[in-house]
Amino acid sequence: MLIPDNIQEIAGGVTAPLGFLAGAGAGGIKKPGRLDVAVVYSQGPAVAAAVYTTNKVQAAPIMLTREHLADQSIRAVVANSGNANACTGEKGLRDAREMAVLTGQLLDLPPTQVAVASTGVIGVYMPMERVREGIRQACANLCREGGSDAARAIMTTDTFAKEAAVQVELDGVTATIGAMVKGSGMIRPNMATMLGFITTDAAITGSMLQRALSEVTEATFNMLTVDGDTSTNDFVILLANGLAGNPPIEGAGPAYRAFVAGLTAVCTKLVRLIARDGEGATKLVTVEVKGAPTVADARKAALAVANSNLVKTALFGNDANWGRILAAVGYSGADFDPARVNIFLTSAAGTEQMARDGAGLAFDEEKARAIMQQEEMGIVVDLRIGPASATAWTCDFSYDYVRINADYRT
Amino acid sequence: MLIPDNIQEIAGGVTAPLGFLAGAGAGGIKKPGRLDVAVVYSQGPAVAAAVYTTNKVQAAPIMLTREHLADQSIRAVVANSGNANACTGEKGLRDAREMAVLTGQLLDLPPTQVAVASTGVIGVYMPMERVREGIRQACANLCREGGSDAARAIMTTDTFAKEAAVQVELDGVTATIGAMVKGSGMIRPNMATMLGFITTDAAITGSMLQRALSEVTEATFNMLTVDGDTSTNDFVILLANGLAGNPPIEGAGPAYRAFVAGLTAVCTKLVRLIARDGEGATKLVTVEVKGAPTVADARKAALAVANSNLVKTALFGNDANWGRILAAVGYSGADFDPARVNIFLTSAAGTEQMARDGAGLAFDEEKARAIMQQEEMGIVVDLRIGPASATAWTCDFSYDYVRINADYRT
Repeated sequence: MLIPDNIQEIAGGVTAPLGFLAGAGAGGIKKPGRLDVAVVYSQGPAVAAAVYTTNKVQAAPIMLTREHLADQSIRAVVANSGNANACTGEKGLRDAREMAVLTGQLLDLPPTQVAVASTGVIGVYMPMERVREGIRQACANLCREGGSDAARAIMTTDTFAKEAAVQVELDGVTATIGAMVKGSGMIRPNMATMLGFITTDAAITGSMLQRALSEVTEATFNMLTVDGDTSTNDFVILLANGLAGNPPIEGAGPAYRAFVAGLTAVCTKLVRLIARDGEGATKLVTVEVKGAPTVADARKAALAVANSNLVKTALFGNDANWGRILAAVGYSGADFDPARVNIFLTSAAGTEQMARDGAGLAFDEEKARAIMQQEEMGIVVDLRIGPASATAWTCDFSYDYVRINADYRT
Repeated sequence: MLIPDNIQEIAGGVTAPLGFLAGAGAGGIKKPGRLDVAVVYSQGPAVAAAVYTTNKVQAAPIMLTREHLADQSIRAVVANSGNANACTGEKGLRDAREMAVLTGQLLDLPPTQVAVASTGVIGVYMPMERVREGIRQACANLCREGGSDAARAIMTTDTFAKEAAVQVELDGVTATIGAMVKGSGMIRPNMATMLGFITTDAAITGSMLQRALSEVTEATFNMLTVDGDTSTNDFVILLANGLAGNPPIEGAGPAYRAFVAGLTAVCTKLVRLIARDGEGATKLVTVEVKGAPTVADARKAALAVANSNLVKTALFGNDANWGRILAAVGYSGADFDPARVNIFLTSAAGTEQMARDGAGLAFDEEKARAIMQQEEMGIVVDLRIGPASATAWTCDFSYDYVRINADYRT
């Protein structure tokens, strides 16, 4: 996705917007010396919106954060990696609550203004002494330059930290949106994808903030898949403190649309970073379905292709097995006519059509392989029966995915 | 699943029932000298029932076989491996039709009494000269002992041929049900699993035969998953020629129920063989969900666990990561209460409880590993809120799955 002209990508992450501080601590939850607690803090009052995993099994921090977000007033987020605090029963909930209480004490906030997030192994009680130590360090380290450390602290199997920031014009005032995200496995549609922390200095009401986040999530985070597994923990939270000084966004006018465009740019960048860093991935793959009767059909089809183990292993092998692509569209539930489908592979190395009217073409195997050998490539499926399109993001499926996940706990 | 007392497992496959012949040919569709065409033939008139892939993209042989099965009168099945004849347009349909015509000529049957099945690579036209040669050989080789060769001829990535046969008492008369199946990847619920050929000498009406096959498929083939991909080609066909001489089964009485029990035993054995032979699999895994409010809930939950890449990679690594099991139940869509779930691992090496009331227990890691190191193991999830249960079959997910599928075409 190209970033529109009126949106300016800038360096940085959650501390790029005015009035946000971040800090990280190494409590020893993961390995000694590794950053594993992050705190993000707004210097002024902020409203918050969030989207949560759809998994029926929800980790303790999710339950607590839902409770704290009820009044949309959140000024700090505390997050740890190394332990998901999921499937931990009543004790897990007490531990999550203690994380909010301690962070609130250190930052002079009521605990209900603190959101809590955890990621890591499931079903193991939190090592609270280490968690406390990490929180103390993270709060002590809070600063305007702390975004990158915070982004590192939330990593699990991620191989690099993931940040994004843009500036948008809202009624003539420049506002900034910044974000950090973690996630490289257990990534699949319906907000099961990861932990995402987004900040903005835009002035916007809580209800419009929630509407923007929900809308953008549908087209970005929910169109991302790494392995088809939906986690118990993950959510995206968006804090807005209004320090940019724009006239508050209270309805769906031009300023709202500009904000949504900026948020979409940030989230799209994050989604691409996650797909590129998918566990064991060797390439980022964009699946575009067009010519669908509705956006819902296009999304179903794109996600089925993006989620297919057979497609993803073929992508790893640089094998232009387009039949698997069409087969995935076939079981996606999308409305289409198999006899009209055109399929293309595309990358910086060129574009090659694999199938026309649902049947194979005598394509150039060499060229197809060259297209697939790029670090970033696209699959384009044109259903040719309607006006709607959608994009999904994924990665290939390699030996390393199996290696990483065969003994995750040990 | 234990085989009930009144069902006798016997040796053999599709030629175990009276009046069925089978033969195989090596046409060179796969590699020279490898069996790649199978023909099954009933010496007397037969009725047929079938279940088909739910994929919207359906291969040419599926379309043709649907047409030929309209009157339920089928006496022969011709099947080839090495090429799926899928996504091959009008020419593919002509090729499938020619397979039926040639087989009909050689067996002195109208082509409409011949069902056609193909499996292998998608999107490549059939090498018809080789297919014809294979059909000629297979028809010339038809004999009462031909079942095993036929079972070998339909293999693709299978590492062994898969057959099953049982005898049942129907109103005091012994009837036989025999079968062969192929499949080890692109295996997932909704009859996308494989090619299955079942024969019986039981006398039964076409409508009761279809009812039996549909009912048994729901609990067996549709509860099997290897990689979550649904193929364009696969179906199960069941031929009944009545030569056992039992009073024809015309309603859902005791004889029908005995027939269904026998058919269930045959299909369960086949399903277990497929899961054991899943691409790259090192073990057969049975997922039993009990205590569910409805069978539909139990099936959803069992299939979600059986289909989870994260569960399956952990199974490969002998890592008792029960949190992933609970997380999969969580996103399955099944109705349950996370705070009541008990989870067990079980095998010939013993049984160990991993979680109680949705939270982890301090289980014996050594014992859990020993349980998982068996060639066959079970996951038991007790939802503890209702009377319904279901079983799904799967395998673990290894490096070899990736290897096999990364360059399937080459």
